[in-house]
Amino acid sequence: MTATPDLPPFEPLVEAGAPSPFLFVCEHASNYIPPCLQGLGLPDELQRAHIAWDPGALGVARGLLARLGGRLVSATVSRLVHDCNRPPDAPGAMVETSEGHPVPGNLGLDAAARAARVRAAYLPFHARVSEEIALMLAGGLAPIMVTVHSFTPVWFGAPRTVELGVIHDDDARLAQAILAEARARTGLAAALNEPYSAADGVTHMLRRHALPHGLPNAMLEVRNDLIATPAAEAAMADQIAPALDAALADLRAGAA
Amino acid sequence: MTATPDLPPFEPLVEAGAPSPFLFVCEHASNYIPPCLQGLGLPDELQRAHIAWDPGALGVARGLLARLGGRLVSATVSRLVHDCNRPPDAPGAMVETSEGHPVPGNLGLDAAARAARVRAAYLPFHARVSEEIALMLAGGLAPIMVTVHSFTPVWFGAPRTVELGVIHDDDARLAQAILAEARARTGLAAALNEPYSAADGVTHMLRRHALPHGLPNAMLEVRNDLIATPAAEAAMADQIAPALDAALADLRAGAA
Repeated sequence: MTATPDLPPFEPLVEAGAPSPFLFVCEHASNYIPPCLQGLGLPDELQRAHIAWDPGALGVARGLLARLGGRLVSATVSRLVHDCNRPPDAPGAMVETSEGHPVPGNLGLDAAARAARVRAAYLPFHARVSEEIALMLAGGLAPIMVTVHSFTPVWFGAPRTVELGVIHDDDARLAQAILAEARARTGLAAALNEPYSAADGVTHMLRRHALPHGLPNAMLEVRNDLIATPAAEAAMADQIAPALDAALADLRAGAA
Repeated sequence: MTATPDLPPFEPLVEAGAPSPFLFVCEHASNYIPPCLQGLGLPDELQRAHIAWDPGALGVARGLLARLGGRLVSATVSRLVHDCNRPPDAPGAMVETSEGHPVPGNLGLDAAARAARVRAAYLPFHARVSEEIALMLAGGLAPIMVTVHSFTPVWFGAPRTVELGVIHDDDARLAQAILAEARARTGLAAALNEPYSAADGVTHMLRRHALPHGLPNAMLEVRNDLIATPAAEAAMADQIAPALDAALADLRAGAA
């Protein structure tokens, strides 16, 4: 695969809800691979699969935005181009193999091709998240960062029983509050730091943007068989939104 | 003072030295206040004083770049417009009073004026630092972040005996190595976390950019009476550069 230093920038999509401190982030919202990358050499079926994006995550994130207000920043390009939830030096940033499938278009990328991916996908996304946070802070509002992901019900043949994962990095405050409220208010099988944890390198967004400003933050992972239709996405948002709202109230009560 | 939502962006200056992992940052390199802000209502003398910038810091940073290589990102606008080493919600971001002097042009800024400052000064600087780091990481080079500042020899009437301060945030590795090498190799009165420390909110740059990527990092503070001329700046760089070089070697030896 030739280097593509002229890859165009993929500005994230920003949507606004009613005024509220929630800043939702959906790094894996899109499976779009620009034509110049020729599908990264993958068959169509894999370009539509979990390795390219988090199916259902954007629908759930939009559902949370509609119910809780705030802002939502979502990616407009596949994580296979550059995963915006991985730093550029991580093996997962431009994966050569994902869930056992080689990604031909990502094999042996040279420095110019890697830099082009960073400029096209990673930098615009993070610049926009930075901007949203800085402007909310300047306006006197401390954002509550919640990133929204989905995971597959089966992983290398093993079924996963968790339905909602709540993941944290060094600051566990919000994640623990969400877990407690999800267990109290929903019928979901909820677990802390499942099916991944910070040790798997999945909390880059939280580390880069929430921790430096001391913002309450958490990563949500929803099992994707539960959000396979627009109606299911909305039903999931109906369950999770009250738990997030209550978790934020708990956090504020604890801090008061 | 009226709001100035049309303030132009102040792109930082980026200078490159010989290939090396050092990423020098000089947030307080400039005392430039754009004409539309009418000097923020300050007399000329205060627009040239320490409250507006860190005199000598850019000269020392350039001296280090010339001796150690790497990259240098420096501000092109006064910290009085927006301090790039403070988050937008910090009282020090757009100071109303500095070292006992009121800053008339910063009094009672409304939300639009604050947002304009963030967009003009804070965001372009941080976006560029992010970009430098991301591209170095994508190229296989982990940056060593060293921010360069200067401080006044007298603070509210009290003389300061420290000549070189080395300041850290949560990751003290590089700062401790620099301190040890500065004491061993220079005649400077060097101290850790003097004249300020992270508790004073001065490590925003390190927290926002070095810690999330696990990059070795430190903030240098040089007493400004020792760097009052170009020759003095060069002499200071002559002293500090070998200490930085040795500190980096110590870090690598320790990690090996």
